[in-house]
Amino acid sequence: MERLKQIILAKGKVLSNTVLKVDAFLNHQIDPSLMEEIGKEFADRFADAGITKILTLESSGIAPAVMAGLVLKVPVVFARKRKSLTLTEHLYSAQVHSFTKQETNEISISQSFITQDDTVLIIDDFLANGQAVFGLIDILKQAKATIAGIGIVIEKSFQDGGKSIRNAGYRVESLARIAHLSDGNVTFLEEEN
Amino acid sequence: MERLKQIILAKGKVLSNTVLKVDAFLNHQIDPSLMEEIGKEFADRFADAGITKILTLESSGIAPAVMAGLVLKVPVVFARKRKSLTLTEHLYSAQVHSFTKQETNEISISQSFITQDDTVLIIDDFLANGQAVFGLIDILKQAKATIAGIGIVIEKSFQDGGKSIRNAGYRVESLARIAHLSDGNVTFLEEEN
Repeated sequence: MERLKQIILAKGKVLSNTVLKVDAFLNHQIDPSLMEEIGKEFADRFADAGITKILTLESSGIAPAVMAGLVLKVPVVFARKRKSLTLTEHLYSAQVHSFTKQETNEISISQSFITQDDTVLIIDDFLANGQAVFGLIDILKQAKATIAGIGIVIEKSFQDGGKSIRNAGYRVESLARIAHLSDGNVTFLEEEN
Repeated sequence: MERLKQIILAKGKVLSNTVLKVDAFLNHQIDPSLMEEIGKEFADRFADAGITKILTLESSGIAPAVMAGLVLKVPVVFARKRKSLTLTEHLYSAQVHSFTKQETNEISISQSFITQDDTVLIIDDFLANGQAVFGLIDILKQAKATIAGIGIVIEKSFQDGGKSIRNAGYRVESLARIAHLSDGNVTFLEEEN
């Protein structure tokens, strides 16, 4: 997605050969108009997949997921990283390790909101080692839902997540795929057409 | 906002005389079309306030805030409840106690994204005792930003937050104001026209 790549180049900060900081427009400050365009792009790519729900993970997945849900006219469920006292029903849960934050969270959703009748699109802001996406897949398997695919805003293709998830048989649509980060520069993978 | 009230009556669950569960459409599963209408309503109410940024708190404030930001054409910043290792800049922080979750979180934003030149609309999903809003006000005072007002999706008017914030001189616009919860029923405050 060209506009996304331009914004990554203009406003992203390469902190190291593995860390790209995008908190100017995606995961701390949010550019709503960019999110709208991202939502439309996900909706377009999965238009014929029969999506009935979108599943994301708090917090940075929520904005692109809600915009995609608006276009696809389906509800969005966000998995929580900690249990809330007002979440009293039964939960589907999975363990997710964050290498960025150096911690393991339990993520969970209420069993009320995704069932075996659902065809689900997973959306997340970043794909690096794939831990978060595998956690969401785990939850959807527990719910016996159909997994239509995974929509990612920014994929760090030099890390293992994208390959692992595709090798496991899932469709992954990433709007910007980064080949490598070096010397403060971002290099994108060549567009696949 | 009539549609919001109808959805609260249809899908909200009164768990006690103080707890209204709205995780079917607002803070776990999200109804994107409702969020769009909420965003438009906030944008309409604050149309002449010269808003340059919206500030909210992860996670449930993000969806309504981003929809309002889309209409007002301004960026949204969400305060984080824990520090991330990739948030390396200086932060503005405040302490917020959650009575629902029985815990105190430090909330913070990067100093990069809100300055003394900003006129900020605070948006949050719930207003009960006002702890979260006062935390966000504290952060905006540290940034020397102008506070245009506070947009709330659901205000529990029988708790102290709304009164405290209005008494402190701030404009509060709540889209649904609940007079009381009892015997499983929700009673709204009479509309102010």
